[in-house]
Amino acid sequence: MLTFAQFGAGRIGAIHAANLSQIENAGLRYIVDVNANAADKLACKYGAKRVDERTALADPDIDAVIIASSTDTHARLIIAAADAGKAIFCEKPIDLSLARVDECLRHARSAGVPLFIGFNRRFDPSFAELHQRICAGDIGVVEQVVVTSRDPGAPPLSYIRVSGGQLRDMTIHDFDMASWLLGEEPVDVFAFGSCITDKKIGEAGDTDSLMIVMKTASGKLAHINNSRRASYGYDQRVEVHGSTGRLVAGNRTATSVEFSNAIAVSTGTPLNFFLERYADAYRIELAAFIDAVNHKRPMPVSGQDGRQAMALAEAALESLRTGRSVKPALFSPP
Amino acid sequence: MLTFAQFGAGRIGAIHAANLSQIENAGLRYIVDVNANAADKLACKYGAKRVDERTALADPDIDAVIIASSTDTHARLIIAAADAGKAIFCEKPIDLSLARVDECLRHARSAGVPLFIGFNRRFDPSFAELHQRICAGDIGVVEQVVVTSRDPGAPPLSYIRVSGGQLRDMTIHDFDMASWLLGEEPVDVFAFGSCITDKKIGEAGDTDSLMIVMKTASGKLAHINNSRRASYGYDQRVEVHGSTGRLVAGNRTATSVEFSNAIAVSTGTPLNFFLERYADAYRIELAAFIDAVNHKRPMPVSGQDGRQAMALAEAALESLRTGRSVKPALFSPP
Amino acid sequence: MLTFAQFGAGRIGAIHAANLSQIENAGLRYIVDVNANAADKLACKYGAKRVDERTALADPDIDAVIIASSTDTHARLIIAAADAGKAIFCEKPIDLSLARVDECLRHARSAGVPLFIGFNRRFDPSFAELHQRICAGDIGVVEQVVVTSRDPGAPPLSYIRVSGGQLRDMTIHDFDMASWLLGEEPVDVFAFGSCITDKKIGEAGDTDSLMIVMKTASGKLAHINNSRRASYGYDQRVEVHGSTGRLVAGNRTATSVEFSNAIAVSTGTPLNFFLERYADAYRIELAAFIDAVNHKRPMPVSGQDGRQAMALAEAALESLRTGRSVKPALFSPP
Amino acid sequence: MLTFAQFGAGRIGAIHAANLSQIENAGLRYIVDVNANAADKLACKYGAKRVDERTALADPDIDAVIIASSTDTHARLIIAAADAGKAIFCEKPIDLSLARVDECLRHARSAGVPLFIGFNRRFDPSFAELHQRICAGDIGVVEQVVVTSRDPGAPPLSYIRVSGGQLRDMTIHDFDMASWLLGEEPVDVFAFGSCITDKKIGEAGDTDSLMIVMKTASGKLAHINNSRRASYGYDQRVEVHGSTGRLVAGNRTATSVEFSNAIAVSTGTPLNFFLERYADAYRIELAAFIDAVNHKRPMPVSGQDGRQAMALAEAALESLRTGRSVKPALFSPP
Repeated sequence: MLTFAQFGAGRIGAIHAANLSQIENAGLRYIVDVNANAADKLACKYGAKRVDERTALADPDIDAVIIASSTDTHARLIIAAADAGKAIFCEKPIDLSLARVDECLRHARSAGVPLFIGFNRRFDPSFAELHQRICAGDIGVVEQVVVTSRDPGAPPLSYIRVSGGQLRDMTIHDFDMASWLLGEEPVDVFAFGSCITDKKIGEAGDTDSLMIVMKTASGKLAHINNSRRASYGYDQRVEVHGSTGRLVAGNRTATSVEFSNAIAVSTGTPLNFFLERYADAYRIELAAFIDAVNHKRPMPVSGQDGRQAMALAEAALESLRTGRSVKPALFSPP
Repeated sequence: MLTFAQFGAGRIGAIHAANLSQIENAGLRYIVDVNANAADKLACKYGAKRVDERTALADPDIDAVIIASSTDTHARLIIAAADAGKAIFCEKPIDLSLARVDECLRHARSAGVPLFIGFNRRFDPSFAELHQRICAGDIGVVEQVVVTSRDPGAPPLSYIRVSGGQLRDMTIHDFDMASWLLGEEPVDVFAFGSCITDKKIGEAGDTDSLMIVMKTASGKLAHINNSRRASYGYDQRVEVHGSTGRLVAGNRTATSVEFSNAIAVSTGTPLNFFLERYADAYRIELAAFIDAVNHKRPMPVSGQDGRQAMALAEAALESLRTGRSVKPALFSPP
Repeated sequence: MLTFAQFGAGRIGAIHAANLSQIENAGLRYIVDVNANAADKLACKYGAKRVDERTALADPDIDAVIIASSTDTHARLIIAAADAGKAIFCEKPIDLSLARVDECLRHARSAGVPLFIGFNRRFDPSFAELHQRICAGDIGVVEQVVVTSRDPGAPPLSYIRVSGGQLRDMTIHDFDMASWLLGEEPVDVFAFGSCITDKKIGEAGDTDSLMIVMKTASGKLAHINNSRRASYGYDQRVEVHGSTGRLVAGNRTATSVEFSNAIAVSTGTPLNFFLERYADAYRIELAAFIDAVNHKRPMPVSGQDGRQAMALAEAALESLRTGRSVKPALFSPP
Repeated sequence: MLTFAQFGAGRIGAIHAANLSQIENAGLRYIVDVNANAADKLACKYGAKRVDERTALADPDIDAVIIASSTDTHARLIIAAADAGKAIFCEKPIDLSLARVDECLRHARSAGVPLFIGFNRRFDPSFAELHQRICAGDIGVVEQVVVTSRDPGAPPLSYIRVSGGQLRDMTIHDFDMASWLLGEEPVDVFAFGSCITDKKIGEAGDTDSLMIVMKTASGKLAHINNSRRASYGYDQRVEVHGSTGRLVAGNRTATSVEFSNAIAVSTGTPLNFFLERYADAYRIELAAFIDAVNHKRPMPVSGQDGRQAMALAEAALESLRTGRSVKPALFSPP
């Protein structure tokens, strides 16, 4: 039985709490959120209790924490939870500062606690099968990876202003996906960005459209294309070219209905957004975290993975500024 | 709050109990099964209690029953539940005897209780969308319906011997699907059957392969093809041709992965069997039953629908025997 | 060098003449048509000469004939060409009377001339590959065949009145396709027909919608569905279920373009009609005929094949009239 | 009637001569090739005559030339043909030197002769439909373009050594495709390249794998990915994201056959290579050239288009060398 405290009672917190309630041998004891109302509501729904941070971490019966609060609280909570000896499941990103990320990693490492970063897309059944087939050798040696990641619409400007920017907030998932599928760290990154879907995003200092290319030491290549607005829905695809084959994971639709008339043969648009597309992924990632903690196995997505995606985002940001390809900063543990 | 007693703690019973536990405003109080072990286990899992039939039906707090026990008990339980004034959710078929089916219908009607027959496929999101689009006029007037329904493998011979035969046990779902999509009762039925996948099925007096055609009064046509064994998995498709368009609902796959190599471009096989393919459908049908009971709306699948499918199966059986097309028996309420 | 005379300068005649002009080692010398204008025009285009029937068949340099004139002339021309010792390529159907068909077959057989019937669909690359893979054992033993064959629109009523009816004119292609794919002769045929797309077709004594089922001696089953009007274009598909796999040949589109917007993901409709869909098939069947004549190999589609499709059409017609399944008439050579 | 002289009797020359023979109102009079054998053979097949360059250009009856000889002869022949007042159809690239390209363009312009560059892919029915739908406004404003272009296998090293390199030889088609679909000139180009499919290509100083990103003045983005070896065949796809929709043009297969067994559902691999995939495109581009010359309309692919693709290739080459994004050289007419 793994007993959890959860930080954050917002949209993602609600997903994790619901998923936790379906897992046998795991229980949710505490909800912590500055929004007492939200915390109470979620706590009530799942038979948990709203407490403050200190109480939650001080309880020796708490084995693990879920950090699903706002980004600016992640690093502090990771450090506090590590000090308290809790296994940590933390939403991405660890922090917007790479130095602070490194601090978190060192802390978790020296405390000897498991640290899992919520790159949920790795647990999407399609992407997971694709990765598993790469590992099984189905396409030989990976040569090129193409990640298409396009949101149906932009978040509010208020969110964009504090998000750390499109590269750190949105592309970070794709940096992780590309690295994971390449099976090698990118050592060189180039990015073009622009603002073409909504001028206000540009005025807020951000991009809404990105095209990135990356290269590994052995010459493997990866491309990511992003947009804050895909008119046809949430576009989440991955394509991997290997020496003996190609694997593609496409979008998912709600039904298999196909309609034909005199004009066209048509099917449904992709599942609406991440809550729908990644519903399974959220469920599976939490189970994978619990399973790894229970069996003392390595975390399926480590703090180092979270750090790597952030380093690639930083490199891409510098590339945007300089018009040059940029090498991501290596992590040097203490 | 709708309080249930459930008859049957087998495979389908387990599905309904699990789905019931996820529905707010509904609760499972009793499990009834001759297999006390199975009943206890299921009761325990969902906080219900094992009781006998009489106790379950005598409790005035029980609003509704789920009949998921063996086919030969359905009619008796429908009649008893109707007498006790319970809303009834009954698995198909109502009974293998059409006369007995009619008796059940009259009983439920005179008792004034809702009677729902578990043609779960109508609630499969793909088939449901297809039907909804027909109703919305997307393809004009329906002209022809093709139902493909092929199991990955045959049930044990012991089951086949008591099943009432392929037409009453397997095709009955397809008779319902075809009638529902035609929007008109078939008035003429012809069937060819043979035993080609496993001789032992033929020796047990049954077919394993069927092709059926049906015609409505206005000249609409329908075809059903069945096999007890589809080498590539569970094949469940529907195709409807209308005056201004065509709608097709195809199989579903577990993932969207596509693999290409020098030989072929390939995707996954259909979801394995009905437990996987119709997991959503089972969940949605139960919610639809509860919703209709709560709002005193007509049952989405009525006893008359269950009777209609059975009458078509009987007509097809007679066609097999005679080499003629056969008119299904009409239901004459008392 | 195979030298041809061609009977018929209409739409199908124009296709054959054009295809012939692209084949090396084959030449078109004569065009025969009661419409002198059409014959002259086609003759001129391909460096041939308009002559009368007698002249064409009397020329000892003529090795082979293409019979693409109206159906009522086929039998007479087959007999005359056989008497003249020419290899014969004849459009379907041989004749609307089965007795007359048998006469043609006996005549060709006793004259020792090759007789090829133009079931062009067997040479469609998709259907041909499907058949070749069945023969290669890719799906084990064939168990069920489903043929979907739906025209984008009905021919003029004037044509329908002399066509011999939908079964003899349209379904005949599908009877051939089903027999060819079953690999066994159907021995029992049942048909439902109705008139639902255009009342005038019914008033002319014909059906516009058909559903047929057939059975072979070993229990294999086949289904054909037909409509004189498919709102979404020309629908030509085949599906074969075997003991170890399934093969499907679908429609073809003009391009691979896929369009997505907020409403749907859509692709093009099927190629418009038989001239577009079977352009390759017409070209390949003529080459196959020439190749078989040159190498004295059996005809890829024999007179017996043409007769078989006609016998199935006759059986289906009788089934429509009687509401019974009907055994097709066997061919007894002299 | 447009009368042609053709330079080059190799593989591409043979395609153009065959296509020319099918076009009414156009004729091939001369074939010029240093390989007298090849020239004689092609000339004989199409009723043309082998002559030398001077004779061909001096004949005042020659209206137009097809330049399908080796790349190093293109510029000289363009200039000579322009001086002789002939309409010019020239295979890509114009020349490997951008200065020499500019010279050709100025020459053709001052001579007032039409100059068409053979970017045949623009005439592929799928890509052409996609472009036409962009122009029709189906997807609103174009925002991002992704071009996937992967050969089934590398050409011989002997060819690679004189090809000008992968960017000038292979990617040049994709630079044209991307520019054409963007509808705006890219003003900034970045490229990553590596050699991972065959070491010998790297030893010959070339890349075999490329990922390129480009940006236009208004912020539209494009990505190209290339490989000299795609294990699953010839991969030629295009994807265009616009403000209100997405258009994709995928690969084409030889047939529509789909095969299902216990392992997978599979379809055929893409058409083998450019001769198969672009057979229609070669035919249509020549007809389009002739049509434009006859009607004195602007060339559908101009010399400036050929120059633009070359300038992008040069920019990408410099980017490979410098690790920076590079602005392509503008063309300044005299």
